[in-house]
Parts: sequence; C-alpha cells; structure tokens
Amino acid sequence: MTSPAKFRKDKEIVAEYEAQVKEIRAQLVEQLKCLDQQCELRVQLLQDLQDFFRKKAEIETDYSRNLEKLSERFLTKTRSTKDICSRKSRASCLLRTAGTCCCFSEDSGRLFKKSKEVGIQLQEDLMKVMNELYTVMKTYHMYNTDSMNAESKLKEAEKQEEKQMGRSDRQTPRSPDTLSSIKSEDKPVRRSSVKKIEKMKEKRQAKYTENKLKAIKARNEYLLALEATNSCVFKYYIHDLSDIIDCCDLGYHASLHRALRTYLSAEQNVEASKHTGLEALEGATESLEPNGDKQKLMETYNNVFCPPAKFDFQSHMGDSVGVVCAQQPLEGELLQRCQQLQCRLSTLQIENDEVKKTMEATLSTIQDMVTVEDFDVSECFHHSNSMESVKSSFSESYLSKPSLAKRRANQQETEQFYFTKLKEFLEGRNLITKLQAKHDLINKTLGESQKTDCSFASGRRNSSIRKQDSGEAIPLMVEMLHSLHQSSR
Amino acid sequence: MTSPAKFRKDKEIVAEYEAQVKEIRAQLVEQLKCLDQQCELRVQLLQDLQDFFRKKAEIETDYSRNLEKLSERFLTKTRSTKDICSRKSRASCLLRTAGTCCCFSEDSGRLFKKSKEVGIQLQEDLMKVMNELYTVMKTYHMYNTDSMNAESKLKEAEKQEEKQMGRSDRQTPRSPDTLSSIKSEDKPVRRSSVKKIEKMKEKRQAKYTENKLKAIKARNEYLLALEATNSCVFKYYIHDLSDIIDCCDLGYHASLHRALRTYLSAEQNVEASKHTGLEALEGATESLEPNGDKQKLMETYNNVFCPPAKFDFQSHMGDSVGVVCAQQPLEGELLQRCQQLQCRLSTLQIENDEVKKTMEATLSTIQDMVTVEDFDVSECFHHSNSMESVKSSFSESYLSKPSLAKRRANQQETEQFYFTKLKEFLEGRNLITKLQAKHDLINKTLGESQKTDCSFASGRRNSSIRKQDSGEAIPLMVEMLHSLHQSSR
Repeated sequence: MTSPAKFRKDKEIVAEYEAQVKEIRAQLVEQLKCLDQQCELRVQLLQDLQDFFRKKAEIETDYSRNLEKLSERFLTKTRSTKDICSRKSRASCLLRTAGTCCCFSEDSGRLFKKSKEVGIQLQEDLMKVMNELYTVMKTYHMYNTDSMNAESKLKEAEKQEEKQMGRSDRQTPRSPDTLSSIKSEDKPVRRSSVKKIEKMKEKRQAKYTENKLKAIKARNEYLLALEATNSCVFKYYIHDLSDIIDCCDLGYHASLHRALRTYLSAEQNVEASKHTGLEALEGATESLEPNGDKQKLMETYNNVFCPPAKFDFQSHMGDSVGVVCAQQPLEGELLQRCQQLQCRLSTLQIENDEVKKTMEATLSTIQDMVTVEDFDVSECFHHSNSMESVKSSFSESYLSKPSLAKRRANQQETEQFYFTKLKEFLEGRNLITKLQAKHDLINKTLGESQKTDCSFASGRRNSSIRKQDSGEAIPLMVEMLHSLHQSSR
Repeated sequence: MTSPAKFRKDKEIVAEYEAQVKEIRAQLVEQLKCLDQQCELRVQLLQDLQDFFRKKAEIETDYSRNLEKLSERFLTKTRSTKDICSRKSRASCLLRTAGTCCCFSEDSGRLFKKSKEVGIQLQEDLMKVMNELYTVMKTYHMYNTDSMNAESKLKEAEKQEEKQMGRSDRQTPRSPDTLSSIKSEDKPVRRSSVKKIEKMKEKRQAKYTENKLKAIKARNEYLLALEATNSCVFKYYIHDLSDIIDCCDLGYHASLHRALRTYLSAEQNVEASKHTGLEALEGATESLEPNGDKQKLMETYNNVFCPPAKFDFQSHMGDSVGVVCAQQPLEGELLQRCQQLQCRLSTLQIENDEVKKTMEATLSTIQDMVTVEDFDVSECFHHSNSMESVKSSFSESYLSKPSLAKRRANQQETEQFYFTKLKEFLEGRNLITKLQAKHDLINKTLGESQKTDCSFASGRRNSSIRKQDSGEAIPLMVEMLHSLHQSSR
C-alpha cells in the first residue's frame, strides 16, 4: 500500500516546518522595522514642519517689520497697521502651529511606542500558536510510529499462527479418527505452541488497536491545530496588522490636518486682508478723474478762482446817460461798425475752429501716448520659472532704454506742437470774446426801437447845430474807426 | 438836473477802478501760486511713489530670498521656484513701476512749466484789456469835462444876449419910428455890441456841440470797452482758468493710473500664484486619509505584509489519511467537543463584543480630542489692529499653558485606557479565531454524510477489537479533552 519512496520521515517534515516558521518570523521582524521606519519618517516630517513654521514666522516678522517701516514713511498710520498687523498675526499663528506640531510629534511618538508593544504581543501570540502546531505534529509522528510498529508486530504474529494452522491442516486428511491418531508422541507439543501463538497474537492485536487509535486522535489534533494555526496566521496578516497600523496612525492624520489647517487659515486671512487692500487701491486707481480734481481744487481755493465783480459804468460828473447812444449822426456809423465786426468775427471764428481741431487731435495723440495700456505684467509671472525670463520680458517691454528714449522724444515733440496750437487758440478766443461783446452791445442798441435821448442837443438852434455837426461828422467817424481798429488789434 | 452831491470826479472813479483791478491782479498771482503748489504736491507724490516702489522692491527681494532659502531646505525645488519667482517678478515689476513714475514725474514737471507759461500769457492779455478800459474811461472823462465847460461857456453867452435883448425891448414901445429915433448918439454903440455877443454865442454853440458829440462818442467807447472787458474777465475765469488747469493735468492722471495699475497687476499676480499654492496645500490637507496611507504602506512593502503560504498537512511515513476521522468510537467524543467549543465561543464572543464597544467609544473620544476644530485663526486677524489683541486671542486659545497641560494629561489617560482595552480585545479575538477554526472543522467533519474510512481496524476480528476498543474509549477521551483545554488556554 505505501512505497518507501513516498514515505516522509519526521526529520524532513520538521525541517520543512521549521523553515516555514523561520520565514514567517523574519517577516514579523521586518514588519516591526517597517513600522519603526514609518514612525521615524513621520516624526521627522513633524520636526520639519515645526522648523518650517518657526523659520517662516521669523521671515514673516522680519517682512512685516520692514513693511511697517515703509508704510510709516509713506502711508497713513491707520491704513498701514491693518495690513501689517494681519501679517504679524500670521507670524504668531505660525509659531502657534509650530507649537501644535511639537505637541503631536510627542503624541505620535508615544502612541507609536504603545502600538508597537501591542504588535509585539500579537506576534508572540502568533508564534505560540505555531509552536503548539509543532508540538501537536510531533505527537502525531510519535503515535503514528508506535501504531506502525504495533501493526508490523501484529502482522508477524499472524504469520506464525498461519504456519501452525498450515501443519494441522496437512494431517487431517490422513485418517478420520483424528483424535485417536493425535494421541501420538508429538500431540502435547503442538497444542501448547498453538495456544502460545494465539495468546501472543491477541496481545499484539490489542496493542495495535490501542496505538492505532492514539495515532488517529493525534492526527485529528494535528489537523485541528493546523486549521487553527492557519486561521490565526490569516487573522494576523489580514486584521491584526491593519489594526496595529491604525494604532500607529492614531490621531496622526487628524493632528497633521489641524496643523496644516491652522497654517492655511493664517495664510488665507493674510490673503483676504491683502486682497481688501488691493481692492481699495484698485478702486482709488479707477476713480482717478481730472475733472473731479479740478472741481475740488477750485472749490478749495474758491476765493482765488471765483470771478470778480463786473466793472460797472461810472457816470462822470453826474453824466445822466449810461447807455450807448445811437442817435443821428452816430447811428449810421455804428451800423457800419457793427457790420465790420460781424464779418471780422466770422473769419476769426472759422480760423479758430481750425486751430481748435488741430489742437484737440494733437491732445488725443498725447493722451494715447501716456495711456499706453502696458500695465498688465502677467507675462512676467507666467513664464517666470527663471529670473532670466522675467528680465527678458522687461527688456522687451517699453521700459527698454532705446524704445523708451524714442517714445519720450516723440512725446515731447508732440507736446511742443500742442502748446503752440493751444496758445494760438487761446489768443484767438480772447480776441473773439472782445469783439463779440462789442458787436453784441452795438447790435442790441441799434435793435432797440426808440433810441435813448442822449440829450445830444441843448440850447435852441438845433437845426443849425445839426447842420454843422453832420459837417463835422466825417473826421470824427474816422477817428472812431481808428480807435475801433486799435481796440480790435 | 444834476446836484453837486451826485457828482463823481475823475479821481474817485479812477481810484475805485484801480482798486478793483489791483484786487484782480492779486487774485491772478494767487492763482499761479495755487497751481505751483499743486504741481509741487504732485511731483512730491510721484517722488514718494517712486521711493515707495523702490523700497518695496528691496523688501520683496529680501523676503523672497529668505523664502527661497526656507523652501530649498524643506520643499521640493520645483514647488519652491514657482511661488518665489512670482515674488521676484513682483520685485522687478516694482522697480519698473518706479521707473515709470520717474519718467512721468519729469513729464508732469515739464508740462506744468509750459502750462504756466500759457497761464501767464492769458493773464497778461487780461491785464491789457483792463488797461484799455482804463484808457477809454479816462478819454471819456476828458471829453466829458470839455463838453461841460463848453456848455457852461455857451450858457454864459446866452445870458449876455438876453441882457442885450432886454434893453432894446424896453425902447421899442417908446416911439414907433425906431430906426429914426435910433439915429441918436448911443445907436452905433448898441448895434456893434449886439453883433459881438451874437457872434460869440454862435462860436460857443459850435464849440459845445463839437465837444458834446466827442463826449458821447467817448462814452460809447467806454461802454463798449466795459462790455468787452467784462466778457474777457468772465471768459478768463470760466474758460481760461479751467483750460490752464487741464493743461497742468495733461497726462498726469493717466500716468498715475498706469503706474498704479502696473503695481496692482504685479500684486495681483503674486496673489494669484500664492492662491494657487494655498489651494494645492488645502487639497493635500483635505485628502489626508489614514486608510489610503495604510494601503500604500502595505503595497510598498508587499513582501513584508503579504500573508505566508498555508501550513499543509504533512502525512507521516505514508499515512494515507489527511482528514479528521470521526468514525466510532471518536464520533461521540468529537460531537461533545464540538458542543463545548460552541458554547465557549458564544460566551467569548459576547465578552469580546463588550470590550470592543468600550474600546471604540474610547477611540472616538481620543479622535475628538485630536481633531479639535480650533484651526480657524480669523479672530486673530479681525480685531488685530494692535498686537496686544493678537496675543490675547492666543492666550485665550487652547495653546495657553494651563489648559493645554490639562488637555494633554487627559488625552494620555484616555490613550492608556484605550490600549488596555485594545490588548484585551485582540487577545480575545485571537482565542476566538483559534477555537472557531477547530469548531468549524469538527462541525464540518461530523456534517459529512459518509465518514472517511480511516482504515481504523486492520486484521480480521473486528468485532472483538471494537468491543475492546469501546472499553478503552473513555480514558482516551478524557486525555483528548485535556489536550483540548490546554490548546484553548
């Protein structure tokens, strides 16, 4: 039934088992090492975070101190403190976070130590189980050997009995009256030996039965222990290990999360207050408005910019008339003068409108020059992984010396031209205003239906006076026109 | 018609006019001063902005250098450069902006100079107009005086004529033949004097008429000049001044806008890159996850954490049976053992479930302790206009020494308890696993319909063997139970 080739002896089996257990023990050692290592890494990370937060706190404090100096120099105290305090707060928060890290670096160290103890305990339990299996297996081997020995001894006894049986069988066919014939010389010898063999065989049978049963029970125990061990090993690798790692992690992620969250909160608050500041500045920038400023200036210095009282007509020595007199002989002359003013004005107006157009065109050119929308500097930030790129982006920009110089020269030329045109325009407007005023007054006077009595004639002989007068009117009118042209030049 | 009281002489009028003009001139001077002042203020502001941007650039460079050092120490090179370069770019942009300011501080200085020239020109024109008015007014006074003198002389002549007339009237009623009676001694005398008076009166009449006309024309010119002057003054105050101020402003707001925009752009780019960084960190923080890490660890060290091969049944010396044998006489005994295991297991399970509950409750307490959501540090920023408030907000916070100490002591106590419970639970689970495995195997075996032949009996007299065997079954079973209890303790 069993060929020697298939037989496996205790030694081989035990050796193999010990090899397998040794391998597992090695793994267990490695597992603890692995956890040790992870714990060290984490403690290191927390240490780094601590140092990082501390160092950053220093940097931020330094930074905000400088900003404070700067803003004390330039900005209003109120505005400065707000942004800078938020930076100081950040520094403090960083220190606080560093503190937190320190605390739970201790925590996770302590927790790890305890978790490791638990792990070791579990590993010892596992080893115990495997040792039990070993013992049970050995017991099986022992009882199995016994039962095999017992079996072979039994077999031997059975062979002897067969021999005996074989002899007595050969005699029986010889004579029918066996009993009489048995009473020969060799009868007592045979009977006693058969009894002896019978007895021995029964003893060995019993021994074998007993050992066989023991062997079977030992094998059952071995099989049960095998099952138990495999379950325990499985349980250890699938559940225990995972639980140990959870233990080592206990609170680690939460604490790290908290520390980083604190850091984030600080940074985000700085970001927010910074953002508010920028928005304020943006608002101010966008509300820059020349006309508004002009109005403010004129209101602030109202007394300097408010127009003075009009010049009133001052009648001389009780001169009773305070209006332009257009009675004959003045009427005709005024009429002529009005027309001359009229046509002079229209010419001037046309000329000045031309000048104005040119001037305004020039102005908008200048404005285009100064409002170059080159203020988006994003490009310096997008491809700015090296300072070179930043620098280059500047050299490209309008700030680069040559193009700048050209721009500025060009700009100044345009300015010069603008101012020439402006002066021209203003002078024109000045003259127009003056002449327009005179023209309008004359026009108005002539328009009035009944002329005011300038009490031109006095005494009785008006006719004669008028005659003489019209005679003298010509040179006088020349004189008037002369003075008109003076005043209009 | 005119009472001496109402008369206003040249001197008073001129004095008043000069006073009025003097006032205006004073205003004009003030206006230029005012513009000067505004220009100075602006140049100063631009200067300040320049310095501000330069100084800030220094601070930022310094700051980013420190951050660079810091990140080189802690972060991966790649991550560091990105944020820091954006800060370097900011520094560069600030310098660029400073440059811009410098440029258009020159610009506005130059533009202002030109604008002021224009202003001065306009003021001179205005003064000229007022001087013209002065002249014309004086002319009016002069001519008016002349005409008044002429008038009074004429009146005088008329009085004399009247006297003469009076005498000759008294004579006429005396005799009808006047002519004959006139041929008396006084006749030639009277006729000649009448003629003389007549002649003189006519001369004065002519003179008066001439002067009166001149006076009226002079008054007209005065009135016209008055109108012109008032218009010019009005025009200057309403239009010219505004234009001059516009000139001074030329490009100022645009340039300032551009400078501030550049600054804003730089700051906003830093803000953006900073924000991206914070978002990344926030993402990382929120994705902190124990199970994930555990998985990773176990995968990384797969060879250390992977379960080993199962222990197989090793048949000894060709033992042909590899399963639990439950033939009589073992069946009954296994059945009993199975039941005992069953009831032992249920007790253990109940006990261990209790332990587990306690353990888990403790765990969640610990987790609550470490996940205190105290990471929102906004309060340090909101009322942080003075560092005191910040400090105080910390002393309130959990980090303050006493409360912290208490917390930590409490936490460690809880941890201790947790680990006690954990060990208890794990031991329990270990035992349960072992017994469960055995129980299940026995149960399975007994469940199998036809039991495997464990070739229990060999030889022929099975009956007798079975008899003996059952006789010996009892002590063996005790032994088995004994070994069972050992393995379950």
